[in-house]
Amino acid sequence: MNQPRLNQQISFIIEIDKLKDIFRQTFLMNGKRKENDAEHSWHIALMAVLLSEYATEKKLCIFRTVEMLLIHDLVEIDAGDTYVYDEDQIKDKREREMCAAERIFNLLPEDQAKAFRDLWEEYEEQKTPESKFALSLDVLQPLLHNYKTKGKAWKQHKVTSKLVMERANQIKEGSSILWGHAKKIISDAVKKGYLRK
Amino acid sequence: MNQPRLNQQISFIIEIDKLKDIFRQTFLMNGKRKENDAEHSWHIALMAVLLSEYATEKKLCIFRTVEMLLIHDLVEIDAGDTYVYDEDQIKDKREREMCAAERIFNLLPEDQAKAFRDLWEEYEEQKTPESKFALSLDVLQPLLHNYKTKGKAWKQHKVTSKLVMERANQIKEGSSILWGHAKKIISDAVKKGYLRK
Repeated sequence: MNQPRLNQQISFIIEIDKLKDIFRQTFLMNGKRKENDAEHSWHIALMAVLLSEYATEKKLCIFRTVEMLLIHDLVEIDAGDTYVYDEDQIKDKREREMCAAERIFNLLPEDQAKAFRDLWEEYEEQKTPESKFALSLDVLQPLLHNYKTKGKAWKQHKVTSKLVMERANQIKEGSSILWGHAKKIISDAVKKGYLRK
Repeated sequence: MNQPRLNQQISFIIEIDKLKDIFRQTFLMNGKRKENDAEHSWHIALMAVLLSEYATEKKLCIFRTVEMLLIHDLVEIDAGDTYVYDEDQIKDKREREMCAAERIFNLLPEDQAKAFRDLWEEYEEQKTPESKFALSLDVLQPLLHNYKTKGKAWKQHKVTSKLVMERANQIKEGSSILWGHAKKIISDAVKKGYLRK
């Protein structure tokens, strides 16, 4: 066996433990604390398995979608979580994340570094059925969390329904059915006062 | 579309958020706090993708292994985390987890409840290549965490190297290479005083 190769893989596995300490703006559904990127990635990877029947493109590879979701936030170990409604942070997000990808994926043996980097770029580019469906889930999940916590994160950041709808609109391409469900959640959230007009 | 079906799936997705609040005995690699089941599941699902080349059985389906790892701890939402070195807790573990599986998986539409239940049973039975490799990763990961935290959880629970070796022995069937690596970690941990003889 190739011990240096295994050592590189183990170093990567150790490095990515840091994802458990990158906290998002979203609260757990019990509202007690914010969610971290590792938990979030687990949740949406499982959602991909569970909701695959609703993907627009019926021939997509669900395993590739799951792999993508498992690694999609790794760059945040260096780049931090960028709140989707924070215009200032969004500006240099791409640059910060590119540097992070360069460092983190290159901890792996060359073939795996390339495979993970390609997977991450595919997600960012949003051109394939897998990446589009992955994004649908990445956007739907925090909607559910916000709804269950009566809009806790929305209220903290004074987010309006217009902004939430713009973001949720990204669900549409990957899954029109989940997009329909998201719209219902948002309109109900406004009705219940979880989200301001 | 079938709205009751989607509603059942969404209820399940909401229910399993509780896995983020089920804490294990293992500490994060920075030693700051204990790890929860959702983070742990994410970590080993990604390890399955990364380390698949070391599986004993070359023809195993890695996607099935990943799916198994994503759901393997869901029963702990009701049954709680059973510390692997706690003999009292181990006694009724199976019974507690069977009841949990009954309730939790049955939140899903019938076909998916059966699929997830089968996947969980397959993991528990340890007869297929996928379940054996999944167990290898489930056992290897906390070893890495204990090593990186200088045996923090081992010391808290006064665990000996004999017990850790017995547990680590379960890595062997799924992957002799990872088993070799685990043995090195354990012997080094004893040498460094992280783990008592």
